[in-house]
Amino acid sequence: MQEFNIQPINLNLTDQIQKKIDLKTKPSGSLGILETIGKQICLIQNTLEPTLQKPSLIICAGDHGITNEGVSPYPQEVTFQMVLNFLSGGAAINVFARQHDIRLKIIDCGVNYDFNDHNSPINCKIDYGTKNFLNEPAMSAEQCNIAISNGAKLVTESHHNGSNIISFGEMGIGNTTSAAAILCKLTGISPIEACGAGTGLDEKGIFHKAQIIEKAITKHQRATTPFEILYTFGGFEIATIVGGMLKAAELGMIIIIDGFIATAALLVANALNNNITDYCIAAHQSNEKAHLFMLQHLNLKPILNLGMRLGEGTGAAVAYPIIQSAVQFINEMSSFEGAGVSKSSSNEVKV
Amino acid sequence: MQEFNIQPINLNLTDQIQKKIDLKTKPSGSLGILETIGKQICLIQNTLEPTLQKPSLIICAGDHGITNEGVSPYPQEVTFQMVLNFLSGGAAINVFARQHDIRLKIIDCGVNYDFNDHNSPINCKIDYGTKNFLNEPAMSAEQCNIAISNGAKLVTESHHNGSNIISFGEMGIGNTTSAAAILCKLTGISPIEACGAGTGLDEKGIFHKAQIIEKAITKHQRATTPFEILYTFGGFEIATIVGGMLKAAELGMIIIIDGFIATAALLVANALNNNITDYCIAAHQSNEKAHLFMLQHLNLKPILNLGMRLGEGTGAAVAYPIIQSAVQFINEMSSFEGAGVSKSSSNEVKV
Repeated sequence: MQEFNIQPINLNLTDQIQKKIDLKTKPSGSLGILETIGKQICLIQNTLEPTLQKPSLIICAGDHGITNEGVSPYPQEVTFQMVLNFLSGGAAINVFARQHDIRLKIIDCGVNYDFNDHNSPINCKIDYGTKNFLNEPAMSAEQCNIAISNGAKLVTESHHNGSNIISFGEMGIGNTTSAAAILCKLTGISPIEACGAGTGLDEKGIFHKAQIIEKAITKHQRATTPFEILYTFGGFEIATIVGGMLKAAELGMIIIIDGFIATAALLVANALNNNITDYCIAAHQSNEKAHLFMLQHLNLKPILNLGMRLGEGTGAAVAYPIIQSAVQFINEMSSFEGAGVSKSSSNEVKV
Repeated sequence: MQEFNIQPINLNLTDQIQKKIDLKTKPSGSLGILETIGKQICLIQNTLEPTLQKPSLIICAGDHGITNEGVSPYPQEVTFQMVLNFLSGGAAINVFARQHDIRLKIIDCGVNYDFNDHNSPINCKIDYGTKNFLNEPAMSAEQCNIAISNGAKLVTESHHNGSNIISFGEMGIGNTTSAAAILCKLTGISPIEACGAGTGLDEKGIFHKAQIIEKAITKHQRATTPFEILYTFGGFEIATIVGGMLKAAELGMIIIIDGFIATAALLVANALNNNITDYCIAAHQSNEKAHLFMLQHLNLKPILNLGMRLGEGTGAAVAYPIIQSAVQFINEMSSFEGAGVSKSSSNEVKV
């Protein structure tokens, strides 16, 4: 597969950034996670004056052969129907992206539908859905490579157009099953621990989904490297996101990590190159059961915990203004000296 | 004191609102807390098409005689210095209010400083700081009544100018001590449970603060009604906020509740009229120790938990875009039928 050259972030400015934050007119540390995020963005951009430019969100859609096993309460056609909904601006992600002026790109990575020319997503279609991974690998190694390089190209284009902060959303009926299988293989947890309700399974449905994953894992025991795991259990949209995330980190962009599917893609990307998380900000803790475990495995702390479990990049979009707040306080707040405000007598306030 | 006529919210539209939300193109319940907030705002406004108009934030500043007891690591003059910082736009709340187009009003409720005419807060000054409540009531009943009616007037004016969503921030060195005393008196928890670091006390400082409150509570045992508790232990800014909150609920406005001090004011307002929480949305869980307890006592769930403990209304401002998202998904998302999206086969999805 394509190589990505991801540098660990440069820590040279760490002390200067901390000093700048501590001189702001507020008790030390009193902006909590905003301070952590602000620092991280300064480090990613190696500057004391961070900026967020042209935030972009790439929604990757693909269908999944595993839906033949009854792992979702929604029929497969909901994937293309929702893609059309994205294109006409009526989905949740459209609402939140408009709210925060986030540029959306809708990508057909492998939807089981022929879009007409008048109302089409960007065409990165590899096939009309993956194979059923209960029986055979979801895709070929070659297809997986194409998806990864598609993701990289999409991100390169966004970066070229001036974006320095990006996120990835997804749509694909059946993809929480795919993501849970990846999670099991990469971290060793059991299918029943990895499986949640997805779009709305009941307890019995979740148990069935875990059994399917259990069988598939047993069948594909020889899939052990991150790349093999990705093409065996993944989806075209997940592989595209993996490539997109790796490229974004290579380009030094800030990556906002959405929910369960996007974080499964990050698990793969991180297994390929663990410098990537330097560039990642976890938007939220999804209500999908194993998402918190995934984030902890990656040592990421989510900004929000709103009980959301919708995908599409909605968590990333809703969290975006908080990231903006983190950047803006660093750039716009006055210092104690500049504002003529007395400092604390306490040692705790390091100014 | 002034009477406020707060109606419980009208629940007539409950089923219709829920139906509208459940027909949106998303799995049922998948927007989590956004759905809860959206519903609440529809109920407050008794509509299926809620709006947020001219969000406003009233920052109330006042000084506290209790600072004589060494309860804060910052000197009292920081109160007026920060008011000047608010007026010149360099404080954290200015940054976040600008970000979200929230109109700020800066109020001198009782700061120990004479502001000159060129750069002045709105004058609602009752005195040059409260008395030291270790020795005597912080203010007279009459002063407390004036502060409450000042708050009501300020809110009436904002409402008259078209605002339907309001929050209250504060500045006052020493006011976490005042708020903690109110918390103890209204809920019965002990001073050591109620006291946190405030602007940055260490363990020893927190213990000292709790001892001061313990002594003051013992001295003022006869203060038992919410109004007596407010004038005995409160601050001019806290009493002004109490009046503002009560008026806002009377006017049917959405009230965003900020951190520890603002929530202490709400404890008093709620003790006076417990219909008020129908109109309240808790912005965040402050890092000030007893804030979560306060929210639980009021049966409010905070939107954010970012480890912030700055006051000024910063938590409310940072949470504002999340409240906007809740309103916008209700107004802008398409329905399953409208978008031609198939429904779930699961019973869990009530459509």
